Amino acid sequence: MTIAVIDGGTRPNGNAELLTNHIIQGMNVERIYLKDYQIHSIIDKRHSPDGFQDRKDDYNSIIDRILRHDIIIFSTPIYWYSMSGLMKNFIDRWSQTLRDPNYPDFKKKMAAKRAFVIAVGGDDPAIKGLPMIQQFKYIFDFVGIEFAGYIIGNGNKPEDIYEDIEALFKAEQLQKKIINS
Amino acid sequence: MTIAVIDGGTRPNGNAELLTNHIIQGMNVERIYLKDYQIHSIIDKRHSPDGFQDRKDDYNSIIDRILRHDIIIFSTPIYWYSMSGLMKNFIDRWSQTLRDPNYPDFKKKMAAKRAFVIAVGGDDPAIKGLPMIQQFKYIFDFVGIEFAGYIIGNGNKPEDIYEDIEALFKAEQLQKKIINS
Amino acid sequence: MTIAVIDGGTRPNGNAELLTNHIIQGMNVERIYLKDYQIHSIIDKRHSPDGFQDRKDDYNSIIDRILRHDIIIFSTPIYWYSMSGLMKNFIDRWSQTLRDPNYPDFKKKMAAKRAFVIAVGGDDPAIKGLPMIQQFKYIFDFVGIEFAGYIIGNGNKPEDIYEDIEALFKAEQLQKKIINS
Amino acid sequence: MTIAVIDGGTRPNGNAELLTNHIIQGMNVERIYLKDYQIHSIIDKRHSPDGFQDRKDDYNSIIDRILRHDIIIFSTPIYWYSMSGLMKNFIDRWSQTLRDPNYPDFKKKMAAKRAFVIAVGGDDPAIKGLPMIQQFKYIFDFVGIEFAGYIIGNGNKPEDIYEDIEALFKAEQLQKKIINS
Repeated sequence: MTIAVIDGGTRPNGNAELLTNHIIQGMNVERIYLKDYQIHSIIDKRHSPDGFQDRKDDYNSIIDRILRHDIIIFSTPIYWYSMSGLMKNFIDRWSQTLRDPNYPDFKKKMAAKRAFVIAVGGDDPAIKGLPMIQQFKYIFDFVGIEFAGYIIGNGNKPEDIYEDIEALFKAEQLQKKIINS
Repeated sequence: MTIAVIDGGTRPNGNAELLTNHIIQGMNVERIYLKDYQIHSIIDKRHSPDGFQDRKDDYNSIIDRILRHDIIIFSTPIYWYSMSGLMKNFIDRWSQTLRDPNYPDFKKKMAAKRAFVIAVGGDDPAIKGLPMIQQFKYIFDFVGIEFAGYIIGNGNKPEDIYEDIEALFKAEQLQKKIINS
Repeated sequence: MTIAVIDGGTRPNGNAELLTNHIIQGMNVERIYLKDYQIHSIIDKRHSPDGFQDRKDDYNSIIDRILRHDIIIFSTPIYWYSMSGLMKNFIDRWSQTLRDPNYPDFKKKMAAKRAFVIAVGGDDPAIKGLPMIQQFKYIFDFVGIEFAGYIIGNGNKPEDIYEDIEALFKAEQLQKKIINS
Repeated sequence: MTIAVIDGGTRPNGNAELLTNHIIQGMNVERIYLKDYQIHSIIDKRHSPDGFQDRKDDYNSIIDRILRHDIIIFSTPIYWYSMSGLMKNFIDRWSQTLRDPNYPDFKKKMAAKRAFVIAVGGDDPAIKGLPMIQQFKYIFDFVGIEFAGYIIGNGNKPEDIYEDIEALFKAEQLQKKIINS
């Protein structure tokens, strides 16, 4: 049982990252910081005769890496009441992979995984982060991934998350859940 | 009374674009296709001593252009149950502008505007597009923009939107509403 | 193809009722005004040795009547951001019917129907009515009913709904959709 | 600092009740089990010349009791993805109290309170209970009550909630939060 963390943060040691650390300490994890890669936004070619074109960026190599794992943790700051644009661009590109002959089993492979969402925000995230959770639910349903849990943490300034003891407790429970699964 | 359209689509004549056309025909509109510009994702520097850095892209020039108008129409395909990553990156950058000494009145100016959301998607958008509407509501509330209306259209293939007569009717009503305001 | 309307309103000629009239005029409809019946709230006996008890009210007779029809229209004013308590009590009781030996096929029969929701409210219903739509979605999914469409109208005072021409237009489209189905 | 618990459950020692017990143990609490009272559904008379009529039930006496407290805990099983019909009927009646000359300060008094929601359900409540939370948010915003926190627990059979250690932990945190406020 191995884990890929897709990190959508844009500053080092952001609160979502710290909260995710709390879950994965001591575990076999491949961590992918999207900010360290070039991922172009999708260009919708679903209905073009020539189809999608290779965007010549790091996107496919990241897909290759996450496909090897059993669990995917989407770890993101809440920017403007949803995942970061960085992470949204990454997910938007799935529409391309779903039609990419080099990934004939993309959906099937994704459907065998479990996903968690770890998100931290500062403006009443327990309420205003809920549409984001619903959005992730629809995303995971579409590809068939099991949405195995989420944590919405409260934080703004660096290390604020260490004050959110409920989020930390949930992180510990989630760690146990992963280990025992 | 003038209008800026921020278009988050990634193919020419996408369904959201066509639906927006239906609203703005004959009106004084400045249309901004985000796909034609370079807009980097935000790098969160809110808590760095040196603050946000100039990203040397087209973002500020677009802000300059929309600030001149009274109405902003956010026109976007629904990708993975929310706005396109292209548009999300644009909005994420508002966090930078809110702290940019070159835009001391950004929030105040935005708060004087009215916004509409025009979104088209293919997977049960009347239900699954609702979290996106809620996200836009929170976004507009944060900067104080009046959320003056939205249309969620149904479409997937090119020109599908012309079959959605309810969306077209709403577009016509929205046009009247804008003209009479 | 016949229709049952379950009306959750509490005053004659309420706005939701008027909007529903606009859909069903000239159609074969059985209309059930919940306010004219006695429907007790559920007493949860799922885990009691003796199970649910007959509540001796009009609930079962209403279930008998709706089960005969192909389409169910849930027509309700929006009270406090969801369906009326009158209608909620009616739906809560489904938990009893799902376990009632007199209705062994309840879920199966419900799953063969299509449902529409017609709701009218006065406090920004296009936004604040969205959680209610999501709730209905989950309700219909649970019993397997197809959620075939909804209209959220805007109205407060008597006959306000006649000013909401978008809702009226949607009602007309919905009528065509039903007739052609 | 005193607390009123409005309990919308319909069986003794339901999971929401047990979870609420976990919060309020040792505290000064007035507990109101709605199932023990007669509360008619509202009859909307906002636009009738003669206005609302006395419903001759226990509703007003309950309002009198909760108005004395600083904190209101809404404790409800999740029935069909929202609060019980019993509780919904109680809240629907607020529309009457808002216009009742015997309660001229109803809104003002409510606005001085803090509210918590404690809800337990069995069908993926962490996701499917979110619209209910949003609905409570709108309800509290309307009367001006501060929405100070919520717990969504997971449970179906009697005492299931004791397995939900995250909910129990949140309950303990919430107790501390109340005590320290």
